[in-house]
Order: sequence, then C-alpha cells, then structure tokens
Amino acid sequence: MERHFQKELESLKTSLVKMGSVVEESIATAIRSLMEKKTELAAKVIETDKRIDALEIEIDNAIIDLLALQQPVASDLRFILAALKINNDLERIGDHAVNIAQAAQILCTIPNADLLDEIPKMAEITRNMLKDAIDSFILLDPAKARIVLTTDDQIDNLNRTVIKTVIDQLKSNKQTAECGLEISLISRNMERVADLATNIAEEVIFHTQARVVKHHAEDRR
Amino acid sequence: MERHFQKELESLKTSLVKMGSVVEESIATAIRSLMEKKTELAAKVIETDKRIDALEIEIDNAIIDLLALQQPVASDLRFILAALKINNDLERIGDHAVNIAQAAQILCTIPNADLLDEIPKMAEITRNMLKDAIDSFILLDPAKARIVLTTDDQIDNLNRTVIKTVIDQLKSNKQTAECGLEISLISRNMERVADLATNIAEEVIFHTQARVVKHHAEDRR
Repeated sequence: MERHFQKELESLKTSLVKMGSVVEESIATAIRSLMEKKTELAAKVIETDKRIDALEIEIDNAIIDLLALQQPVASDLRFILAALKINNDLERIGDHAVNIAQAAQILCTIPNADLLDEIPKMAEITRNMLKDAIDSFILLDPAKARIVLTTDDQIDNLNRTVIKTVIDQLKSNKQTAECGLEISLISRNMERVADLATNIAEEVIFHTQARVVKHHAEDRR
Repeated sequence: MERHFQKELESLKTSLVKMGSVVEESIATAIRSLMEKKTELAAKVIETDKRIDALEIEIDNAIIDLLALQQPVASDLRFILAALKINNDLERIGDHAVNIAQAAQILCTIPNADLLDEIPKMAEITRNMLKDAIDSFILLDPAKARIVLTTDDQIDNLNRTVIKTVIDQLKSNKQTAECGLEISLISRNMERVADLATNIAEEVIFHTQARVVKHHAEDRR
C-alpha cells in the first residue's frame, strides 16, 4: 500500500510538471505571437487552453482519488492539498496566456504599435519565475522558491513603468488608445502571472517550512 | 464521531459565509469609495484585506484538520475540496476589491473623471452574482448556481462597452489617459470578480450534479 501510494504521488508530480510546461509554453508562445506579429501563434495559445483545462480536471480527479483511497495524513496530506492549489494556479496562468494572445491578435493588426522594451523583458522574467516555482515544488526546495518571491518586485516595477509610459504616450499622441489599452492589458496580465508564480512559491515555502509567508505585504499594481 | 463531523462541516459552512460576506462588503465599499469620492472608504478596503487573508488561512487550516482527522470520503470529501477552492476564490475576490480601491484612490484626486454609468451597474450585478454563488454553495442549489453562469455574459458585455467607451473618450480627448486606464482597470477587475463568482457556481454544479461545466466556452475579455 505504502509503495503504491509513493508511486501515485510520483505520478501526480509528473502530471503537474507536464501541466507546468504546457502553461509555460503558452505564455512564451503568446509573447512570441506579439513580438513576431504572428496571429497564428495567438490562435495556437487559445487552442492549447482547452488542453490545459482538460489537464486541470484530470489532475483534480487524480487528487480526489488519492485522498479518498489512500487517506493520507500529515505532510503527505499537505503536499497533496498544495498540489491541488498549484494545479488551479497553473490553469489560471493558462487563462492569462489567452488574454495576452487575444491582445496580441488585436495588436498584430495595428501597423505602428510601439511594443515597449519592457514587455519582452517582463515575459522572460515571468517565464523564469514560473519555471523556478514549479521546480521548487517538485524538488521541495524553499531556497528556489524564495528567489521567485524576490523576483516578483522586478515585475511589479516593470508593470508600473509600462503603465506610466503608456499614459505618457497617450498624452503626447505617440500611441493610439487601442494600442495603449492592449499593451497595458498585456503588462497587467504578466504581472498577474508573476503573482500566481509567487503563490506557488509561497505554497512551497509554507509546505516545506510550515510557516505562513502567504499574503506578504505587496503592491498589487 | 459522525455527529461531530457534521458539526464541523456546519462550522466550515458558517466560516465560508462569513468570509463571503466580508468579501462582498469589500467590493461594495470599493465601489462606494469611487462613486462618492471618499478615499477613506478605499483605505478601509485595503485594511480589510488583511482580515480576509487571515480568514483564508484560518479556513484552510480548518479544512486540513477536517481531512486529516475525519478522513471523509465520497460526497463529503468532494464538498470539503470544493470549500477549499471557494475559500481561495473568495480571497482572490478580496484582492480585486483592493485593486478597485487603489484605482478609486487615484480617481478621487482627478476632478473631472467621467465614471461611466456602466461601472455602478457592473458593481451591482457582480455583487448579486457573488451573493448567489455563495448562497448556492451553502444551500447546494444548482438552479441558483446556473443563474450566476447566465449572468456572467451581462458583465462581459458591460466590460466590453466600458473598454470601447474609454477608447472613444481617449481619442476625442474627453477623458485623460490616467482616468481612462484606471476606469478600464476597474471594469476588468469587476469582470474578474464575476469570473470568480462563476467559478464558485461551477464548483456547486459540479459538486451537486457531478458533471463538469467548468471551462465552458467564454469570452474572457
């Protein structure tokens, strides 16, 4: 029974890694669609979201079975509940990838849209945060998780810079209203992805150190 | 043991109702702060978020204890896992209330900000959705939950109208860039609250009818 349980836990981890890499890829593809002005890539992200939704339900059901059949306690129970939350966070990140892809589709049709330098920078940092967050969970490595937490400030700052730049551009008519709103939307969606990666990292720290670092003071904008 | 378990389940429901009403109040207060131009109300929302975060952790811990000590199976297990997700959704709604309150603080300082009629309309509908979603969970009433699902389209439409109006206003210089971005931010945050209320309603339908209506085709923007 115990060996069987360990095997199922490993299988749960593998599923989450798979879900994580699909979601990570979606964010990267959404940004590529934007930077390379390829609407077909945005369409791919929207299509992939169905797979992410299906994966979420599959993992949820596996977790329910694991809880019902194995009745884990103590740290195993906490690990499985953390997996449930992380699964939910990953699905939400998939939704943000769709939002970014939809904005990219609009921006692709606008000839002189100024895609601020901060956008690809945010994309790269966010993608690394997401990767580190998932790795930290799989390896149960709180040090890696803490890196995610400190990186979140960079994204918050970049988001603020983007919003400020967009406002300045709109005032001086250097960007159309449509572009400005879409770019600020992309920036805010990336900032939300970074927040969700931070949630995952906080779960890992909470799980490994049984200490609440959730809801640390932060500027959400 | 069984009676004790039922008592703990009731206590969990009561905690979620309490959490739900605090969150509902936060959304309402954030919107009042905006409409009545009272920054002190926005500050209250930001302050209340700490209480919401503490409540989330308290409920999470109660759920972990319930799972570990009572080892529920079948429908009790599913109910408790639904409660865990709903608790998480409510905390996120609290975060959106903070976002709206922060935008209200900025808009309060701008003399001629045009707070579109759609905004209070969205606020009222969203608040009712949230109330219905929580009620549907407590009463395990899928009919009530379905009302939430159908209402979500109204919010999506209102959000699109707001974004379109803001773009038109920015183009014709009838609204400053700062106002336009903050108003579109508020609209999108309300749309996210409606999505989260919809998530809760979907959990209820899933739980009561063991049928996946999650991830129904929807326009997220």
